[in-house]
Amino acid sequence: MLPRGRPRALGAATLLLLLLVVVGFFLFGRDPEYGLRAAATFEGDPYGSRNRSASGLHPPLPPKCELLHVAIVCAGHNSSREVITLVKSVLFYRKNPLHLHLVTDAVARNILETLFRTWMVPAVVIRFYDAEELKPLISWIPNTHYSGLYGLMKLVLPSILPLSLARVIVLDTDVTFSSDIAELWALFAHFSGVILLWLDRLRQTGWEQMWTLMAKRELLTLTATSLADQDVFNAVIKEHPELVHPLPCVWNVQLSDHTLAERCYLEAADLKVIHWNSPKKLRVKNKHAEFFRNLHLTFLGYDGKLLRRELFGCPNQLPPGAEQLQQALAQLDEEEPCFEFWQQQLTVHRVHITFLPHQPPPPRPHDVTLVAQLSMDRLQMLEALCRHWSGPMSLALYLTDAEAQQFLHFVETSPVLSARKDVAYHIVYRDGPLYPVNQLRNVALAQALTPYVFLSDIDFLPAYSLYDYLRASIEQLELGSRPRKAALVVPAFETLHYRFSFPNSKAELLTLLDAGSLHIFRYHEWPQGHAPTAYAHWREAQAPYQVQWAADYEPYVVVPRDCPRYDPRFVGFGWNKVAHIIELDAQEYELLVLPEAFSIHLPHAPSLDISRFRSSPAYRDCLQALKEEFHQDLSRRYGAAALKYLTALQQSQSRA
Amino acid sequence: MLPRGRPRALGAATLLLLLLVVVGFFLFGRDPEYGLRAAATFEGDPYGSRNRSASGLHPPLPPKCELLHVAIVCAGHNSSREVITLVKSVLFYRKNPLHLHLVTDAVARNILETLFRTWMVPAVVIRFYDAEELKPLISWIPNTHYSGLYGLMKLVLPSILPLSLARVIVLDTDVTFSSDIAELWALFAHFSGVILLWLDRLRQTGWEQMWTLMAKRELLTLTATSLADQDVFNAVIKEHPELVHPLPCVWNVQLSDHTLAERCYLEAADLKVIHWNSPKKLRVKNKHAEFFRNLHLTFLGYDGKLLRRELFGCPNQLPPGAEQLQQALAQLDEEEPCFEFWQQQLTVHRVHITFLPHQPPPPRPHDVTLVAQLSMDRLQMLEALCRHWSGPMSLALYLTDAEAQQFLHFVETSPVLSARKDVAYHIVYRDGPLYPVNQLRNVALAQALTPYVFLSDIDFLPAYSLYDYLRASIEQLELGSRPRKAALVVPAFETLHYRFSFPNSKAELLTLLDAGSLHIFRYHEWPQGHAPTAYAHWREAQAPYQVQWAADYEPYVVVPRDCPRYDPRFVGFGWNKVAHIIELDAQEYELLVLPEAFSIHLPHAPSLDISRFRSSPAYRDCLQALKEEFHQDLSRRYGAAALKYLTALQQSQSRA
Repeated sequence: MLPRGRPRALGAATLLLLLLVVVGFFLFGRDPEYGLRAAATFEGDPYGSRNRSASGLHPPLPPKCELLHVAIVCAGHNSSREVITLVKSVLFYRKNPLHLHLVTDAVARNILETLFRTWMVPAVVIRFYDAEELKPLISWIPNTHYSGLYGLMKLVLPSILPLSLARVIVLDTDVTFSSDIAELWALFAHFSGVILLWLDRLRQTGWEQMWTLMAKRELLTLTATSLADQDVFNAVIKEHPELVHPLPCVWNVQLSDHTLAERCYLEAADLKVIHWNSPKKLRVKNKHAEFFRNLHLTFLGYDGKLLRRELFGCPNQLPPGAEQLQQALAQLDEEEPCFEFWQQQLTVHRVHITFLPHQPPPPRPHDVTLVAQLSMDRLQMLEALCRHWSGPMSLALYLTDAEAQQFLHFVETSPVLSARKDVAYHIVYRDGPLYPVNQLRNVALAQALTPYVFLSDIDFLPAYSLYDYLRASIEQLELGSRPRKAALVVPAFETLHYRFSFPNSKAELLTLLDAGSLHIFRYHEWPQGHAPTAYAHWREAQAPYQVQWAADYEPYVVVPRDCPRYDPRFVGFGWNKVAHIIELDAQEYELLVLPEAFSIHLPHAPSLDISRFRSSPAYRDCLQALKEEFHQDLSRRYGAAALKYLTALQQSQSRA
Repeated sequence: MLPRGRPRALGAATLLLLLLVVVGFFLFGRDPEYGLRAAATFEGDPYGSRNRSASGLHPPLPPKCELLHVAIVCAGHNSSREVITLVKSVLFYRKNPLHLHLVTDAVARNILETLFRTWMVPAVVIRFYDAEELKPLISWIPNTHYSGLYGLMKLVLPSILPLSLARVIVLDTDVTFSSDIAELWALFAHFSGVILLWLDRLRQTGWEQMWTLMAKRELLTLTATSLADQDVFNAVIKEHPELVHPLPCVWNVQLSDHTLAERCYLEAADLKVIHWNSPKKLRVKNKHAEFFRNLHLTFLGYDGKLLRRELFGCPNQLPPGAEQLQQALAQLDEEEPCFEFWQQQLTVHRVHITFLPHQPPPPRPHDVTLVAQLSMDRLQMLEALCRHWSGPMSLALYLTDAEAQQFLHFVETSPVLSARKDVAYHIVYRDGPLYPVNQLRNVALAQALTPYVFLSDIDFLPAYSLYDYLRASIEQLELGSRPRKAALVVPAFETLHYRFSFPNSKAELLTLLDAGSLHIFRYHEWPQGHAPTAYAHWREAQAPYQVQWAADYEPYVVVPRDCPRYDPRFVGFGWNKVAHIIELDAQEYELLVLPEAFSIHLPHAPSLDISRFRSSPAYRDCLQALKEEFHQDLSRRYGAAALKYLTALQQSQSRA
């Protein structure tokens, strides 16, 4: 938002307001009577210092429950992350209902729609505007810079926001609030009628003609690349200074313009808005930068679910689904031994899909996405996984907000990971004591964009050839063209050694298996989990062969993307994949084992959830209750066909 | 802070103020002219609602840089944790310098002194008052409840705080601020001269005689156990209602008194202080409790280092050491390839010693504390470690503030861990990208309270008999009585299997070793690390035997508590123990291997730091630079005697 291109002959006072975060806000009608008076009033106390009398300079805050309107232009993966930090800082201090008007491209809309739907913040209304539709209004301005086009969209906000909307605060994505946004809104009231109507007034005074004219005039002397929204604003304002009202400097503490900003913050009692003109500023080491960085990091790492705070005494605040959710939670009995499980199942986790820049794979009829989920303690698997699987991946990460920032840093500093744009990372924010394994799998599955998915686990490394081999197999088996539904089984092995040389072929794998360096996955502890794969047969097999479902079978499979979802009731440890395979079998998926496919589980310390499962009979009882509920649902859905699963369950229990 | 014991006939209005967090604050002189006027003013708007005019009701905030005084009584491990959350919430919103007057017992003082010293918050002055000295002033009140005595200390604050101090805000530990404490301080000014002098006035009006008289009168009709500070305040106020001024309810939103509180928060525009009268309230599931819980959790999990924010434009704020630290950091060259290492070494981590209740071990001349450090991903080792080591432990945990809360929950829900009061957990708060392994070891080492320490690592499980055997060995070797310094070597083994049956004796261990289920620790990858232990000799040994230092030797040792500290320059992975053993050798510690001692390393996924080390030549170069620096320091300190270490280093490098 700094002036770009040729130097401009604008004084400090003008600069101050040109650089304002709040762009729409300080534009008001031509009436000099109001404009001048207001400006004069503020210039008397540009720092918003405390010692002034309590009267005129503190505009009263808007009434309790008054709705405040905020507009933000946001495009792409990185801006979507930025805007969330901005919104967190606004929500933290706000005490009024908010209406966010988000002008977005398709990527940002996809991300932010999911995020706000799952965030479920009371008293926040979101409306999206398609940036695509705005492009014709500004694309006549020659502009070679991609983001520049989105910047220019602020010029046309008066035209595209609803006519019923009289006032709006326009924010850049790179600002952090450190005060209640209502204080900013209150400055509208300060200018009585005029500013209250600014959108109307701008429309009436011919804002569109005005900026268009100025932009065209500027273009005569300016190169196309340097023209951005701020240049147009500058030009308009230079011509029509009465349009502008300077805000106290505390409302736009800029970190790129040190002299001006320092004068402001050393004298001010209270900073209201920090503007991160340059993201690099976060890495500056001088002590003042530290101060601002801390304010920013506060909201970067802030647990967004804590902002699901309602506004006491204001009506109709609840987002869709929130009321039913509250009722369901209220019906749970805290004294019930499995309370934690029921509560965890009901938890709606905030979801940030495609947290990092991502290029969707080109449409290919036999392509396969590797689907898995992980938490922070498995991050070090990602590089190895990228080396083993060269195809697209869709990974759900269960992280806190602070961990998501560490994750971002981890990817950015890894040459292997940052080179891969076909890996989509979806953050599911932590909430509750039990790992919501199947909810995570479903998020990753829902975001897979290829016709087939390989449903794996993060501790497994696939054979180097697996990606190519799977696509060839799908093609050979003509899976896409047949009405027959099939799940391709990838046999699973494990090594108990944490230093280990990965086999390059099935032959090498069999050698390691015979030497005792590799084992069939969980052969000793849970043989029924993979026994139906028929490993003895697999050793010799030259072609895919069909196997039958049996109790507790939980192979890793390749299925069409539209396969059944995982049952989200299974949280924590145990039976989460078993239930999914039952579902596939109930829906008559054929189980076909692939003769050359394999993947190998690497050792790791047991997760906290497994430790808990092993040491707690109560935990096992709750898992049992989940299984029974699941079978009741199965019977309801599949009738007599589901009987075999129940019989199998009962047999396995009588054996145990 | 709720009235206890017999029911009291106090009206709602009186209750409101009796329950106020701010105890000292609302007590003011007898002058009815001031008192009544002030009370009347406030009662007109008990909710602090927004729609009033901006004039009289908003007392102006104190001038920029005015010092505000806060007094808190705090005793024991749990209150020390509580008070930190309170202080975080105050610091988050504050804009003035603060002086904290902390009345503490020895435990809380030890914890909080370390914490504030390492927290290094600018513009915060801490002064401690010994609660022990206050006890005689109140111990005549029969009181069987331990914490009750500390509660009563608020009664004598006017006597013990410095005479120069005219005003103070007194806070309970179980409150959370959601506004600037200056707004509370401003209410002093609202009552002009009288309240400004309240400490003086209370002294003048004979506060001490007054409350003493009341307490004695109450004792005639009350059982001893139910008498607490609030009862005395209640009694005084009942007799002298003019002493009290009601604050707007937003300054004490109590969660245990639902009806009153709800009326307050539904009508108020802005809540200022939340009072967690009952900690159990955090677990209530109704939607309003959720709101308050979120406010509280905000500061529980808030990264305290972000509060190291200076106050712009106020002089003399920096805590001891902060200026030198800033200068040292400013001298670092960001472009230097090892910048991260130098920065990490200089980082002062906040340290919260004895985070959980802890009973120091009784003094015993041969007792040994197990010393180790860990981060979140090794939490699941703790139970096993407790089963293997029945003696005292001092463990440093490298956690974020949010993880510290998860850790608390983990210990509380583990019967094994919560039963052990001889394990001291010290939280070192995360800051920076590299694991400060030796700084962590030094924190744990400094807090070990027995004459000997076993310097171990968290991934090792000691032989079940090790604790007893070490104490017996120390006694037999007469280590304590000899001037000779010795380090007892505990031979280290490893298993590569993550399911594994731990040997009950040396004989069993040797069997497993011969069967290939166990190995000498890092025998294949880093043989020089443990080769000097002479395992072949150890197999047959019946008595302790001496071994000689050699390059890269890094055995696990038992040493007197006053042994040299670890060199904090080694951060991340590599050479951190090697340097310590060199230091022991340079100081002429004898290395004695114990014939029956052993401990076994369990497998785990490589830590992020190790992964980074393995993949990054730059990382290895920085480690090399650290080693060279270390050797230069060695030469400086030990002269020619240090030559052998340098020679050994150069030889090992020429081999590599």
